[in-house]
Amino acid sequence: MTDKIVAFVLYPGLTPLDLIGPLQVMSGLEAVEQVYGIQPRHHVVVVAEHLDAVPTDTPARVAATSTLDEFPEPDIVMVPGGGAPTLRQLVNPVLLDFLRQADRSAELVTSVCTGSLLLAGAGPLQGHRATTHWAYHRFLNRLGATYVPERWVEDGRYLTGAGVSAGIDTALHLAARLAGDEIARLVQLAIEYDPHPPHGGIDWTKVDRESFAGRVEGFAHQALDEHPEMLARVLGTADKAG
Amino acid sequence: MTDKIVAFVLYPGLTPLDLIGPLQVMSGLEAVEQVYGIQPRHHVVVVAEHLDAVPTDTPARVAATSTLDEFPEPDIVMVPGGGAPTLRQLVNPVLLDFLRQADRSAELVTSVCTGSLLLAGAGPLQGHRATTHWAYHRFLNRLGATYVPERWVEDGRYLTGAGVSAGIDTALHLAARLAGDEIARLVQLAIEYDPHPPHGGIDWTKVDRESFAGRVEGFAHQALDEHPEMLARVLGTADKAG
Repeated sequence: MTDKIVAFVLYPGLTPLDLIGPLQVMSGLEAVEQVYGIQPRHHVVVVAEHLDAVPTDTPARVAATSTLDEFPEPDIVMVPGGGAPTLRQLVNPVLLDFLRQADRSAELVTSVCTGSLLLAGAGPLQGHRATTHWAYHRFLNRLGATYVPERWVEDGRYLTGAGVSAGIDTALHLAARLAGDEIARLVQLAIEYDPHPPHGGIDWTKVDRESFAGRVEGFAHQALDEHPEMLARVLGTADKAG
Repeated sequence: MTDKIVAFVLYPGLTPLDLIGPLQVMSGLEAVEQVYGIQPRHHVVVVAEHLDAVPTDTPARVAATSTLDEFPEPDIVMVPGGGAPTLRQLVNPVLLDFLRQADRSAELVTSVCTGSLLLAGAGPLQGHRATTHWAYHRFLNRLGATYVPERWVEDGRYLTGAGVSAGIDTALHLAARLAGDEIARLVQLAIEYDPHPPHGGIDWTKVDRESFAGRVEGFAHQALDEHPEMLARVLGTADKAG
């Protein structure tokens, strides 16, 4: 049986935990499938425009295994997010074309954090329920999806995770969907995912989801000032400007 | 006031979530300190023997910002772990020397997962309480530390985290220790760390900590067969062999 290809998308400036959290989970799944001889195996690749290491929003740089055109038809695609550099990808035709083409072949299209903005901007998430980093929820709605404040959201073929660290939970859910609960629990044990946030979870009754609005609007300007149409779309000023 | 240097150690073959989890947290701390003008600021670097991207135990490669000799006296050092490639570092004099020298200057010496084996093997953790990935607990004891099965363990200047994903919890605890609970909570919110493992946490009453013994002993052979003294030390056969 042919391996299923799971393609993680890499681009400059992303938030690396968005990528590495679910990548560690899905690589763990591949390893478990190999040990137990499970078919089909999920073969994980990291795809980018180029193979050079790209900067991230931390000091680490990350490099892909393959170029986008080597895997135009993955079975599963995963798009990580970030801040201004992710918004900049909203006007990158190479990445958007890859996402549109991948959407046509993939059985599952997934994202973490603001990766969902790219899936909405490229088209696939139009009209779908989805999630994103809490501070960017208005951007997701303006790009044509419907924000749902959950840890992960499934709408048919689309599985989107909330901000940054949510990629781990989302990927464990994905692993269970692909290979069953028992295998997913084994992957969880391998990465010792028994979270104990020192200050407990987030109390959402105390979080004002508008509190970072000025900051993320600043990121939009930083990313898109030379692309006034997309900027107006993201900021919700398109109608007024038109 | 001079920035405090937080040096994350990178080496070939490591488990990238061990590195990127706490790196995302500490980079978030640096960003928050910058926004609020907090002093001293914690400046995060990633140090390795070379600047080329190195392989990891996932398909992603990761590159450092600086070489080890550029930051011989960090204020805080963090050592991530991994499988066989991490055990191989137990006989890498360049890395071990770096860790010994860093230990002399650093106010805090920290690790995630089997990174604690390197701190024990190099010397600093000798006689200290520490933790590691659950499957490697015997290796940690044999290398001269005392394994404690907690999410993170503090013993004076030494802060060690459990396996892989524990680096996020450990780093949030570290951020609180360095900059207070309020700032640590802000970093937690920025990375939306409100974990919801799809199958709940790990039920340790059902985990046999010996169940991976054969597998990790295999990793030890893979890493150290050409270094019989260190292999015997890790496998606990040193006395019998002597």
